[in-house]
Amino acid sequence: MKNTSTTSIKLKKVNSHQLLDAHDQLAIEEPLEIQIIYGDKNNRIQRTISITMRTPGNDEELALGFLFTEGIIQNKNQIANTHISPFENKALITVNENEKLNLQNTERNFYTTSSCGVCGKTSIEAIKTISIYNNITDNIRIPSSVFYQLEQQLRKQQTLFDSTGGLHASALFDLEGNFIMLREDVGRHNALDKLIGAAFLKDELPLTERILLLSGRASFELVQKATMAGIKIIAAVGAPSSLAVQLAEETGITLIGFLRNEQFNIYTGAGRIILETRG
Amino acid sequence: MKNTSTTSIKLKKVNSHQLLDAHDQLAIEEPLEIQIIYGDKNNRIQRTISITMRTPGNDEELALGFLFTEGIIQNKNQIANTHISPFENKALITVNENEKLNLQNTERNFYTTSSCGVCGKTSIEAIKTISIYNNITDNIRIPSSVFYQLEQQLRKQQTLFDSTGGLHASALFDLEGNFIMLREDVGRHNALDKLIGAAFLKDELPLTERILLLSGRASFELVQKATMAGIKIIAAVGAPSSLAVQLAEETGITLIGFLRNEQFNIYTGAGRIILETRG
Repeated sequence: MKNTSTTSIKLKKVNSHQLLDAHDQLAIEEPLEIQIIYGDKNNRIQRTISITMRTPGNDEELALGFLFTEGIIQNKNQIANTHISPFENKALITVNENEKLNLQNTERNFYTTSSCGVCGKTSIEAIKTISIYNNITDNIRIPSSVFYQLEQQLRKQQTLFDSTGGLHASALFDLEGNFIMLREDVGRHNALDKLIGAAFLKDELPLTERILLLSGRASFELVQKATMAGIKIIAAVGAPSSLAVQLAEETGITLIGFLRNEQFNIYTGAGRIILETRG
Repeated sequence: MKNTSTTSIKLKKVNSHQLLDAHDQLAIEEPLEIQIIYGDKNNRIQRTISITMRTPGNDEELALGFLFTEGIIQNKNQIANTHISPFENKALITVNENEKLNLQNTERNFYTTSSCGVCGKTSIEAIKTISIYNNITDNIRIPSSVFYQLEQQLRKQQTLFDSTGGLHASALFDLEGNFIMLREDVGRHNALDKLIGAAFLKDELPLTERILLLSGRASFELVQKATMAGIKIIAAVGAPSSLAVQLAEETGITLIGFLRNEQFNIYTGAGRIILETRG
């Protein structure tokens, strides 16, 4: 993974009054074109759904995770095969014949720029309707101390971050705070799509019994993707946006922000967190 | 500006074994639909170019900056009028009759997701061709000490960042390191579009005699937007991506990263930086 995700570069380091030649690792950023082939036997259609600037590696997870969190595909049984061409920066996902896809969802991709997953006034309503895990109820109760070690565990796992400083991470933990897996990317939405795509490939969705940890800020788009995967607990190291909080509130997600060691903010769904008193 | 960019929210703060009710400021994230009206007298066309998740405020700058950095408009004289409806989250830009627009550039927006400004194999070539300030040469030489105080000045100016922790900033300084202006947004690309849009409105383009400071990482998209505005010096507090470095190299930009007090890395265009020796 390291070979395709980072690259070594020559640079000059300025440190007060010294100028030194040096080498450093950079996070690779390259486009990935996600195409699907769908339709009935007599009318197969090949279509580009998105081109995203991503860090190479886990491209199949990224493509499937993207198609799933955008509501275009629902499960693995719809997929005939996937063909990843890392050197051409292409992921071609072939859907079974006659499979019905929610392609109206792709329309929204035609009007997005960075950080924009869903747009327009009805977006929150739309998301609530689209998620196939919308009706899952839970009785999750997590002691506050479970969150205290999450960021430290993330840093330990996030080896690429250490070498480049340029990658966002999304990670899954179980409800006891045990690390499950992590994905990284120059784009925070890609890191989450890779993570959800990995779970999709392993038939582990919905991720209701998991904590999602985000290495940075929590935007609307990330909460939306988490909602699609049935995630109920999101903890972010950074700040949430107003719309992220609103969507978390309306979809019954526990949203935690500014997670630093033994401190964090609970923006929504505080009922799932049990405060432990000393002694 | 503060009223439309941040919102107060109730939350619970966990600090080790204490749980406290609190209020905090969040960065507002809402969609902005950017539409243009163009065409000849007998055939006026109204078209949505982009919907971006942005922090309200400076919407006119954002819309014009976006249209400019995407290569769709070139100068103020092309614009008949702008109509901003902040409550409807719409910016309508009316272009003069018979004005020729580079609308083929909008195609690429149809295939983008977050952090993706330009996609496809020919993107770097395309950018080099598109920028109207491509042929500007310069003899810029900047003492390294000019960069030492930039981040501190940014933090001082970035009042919104202090209250929410959720906003990216783009700032302009002159070549002596004097602060000129700053714009903030939940989306880093929007912060830069607002900044370039402000310069566009003031007829201050190209920004060749300016240093651009980015509060976070330097992605391909941000270097691309800077290139469009004729910027030659980019300093980022965070890491650059591989493609950001490549584009900076190919378009003759000086790209600095990991700027922290008296330390920084020079990735490209080191010839413009003069190291000052002690005494």
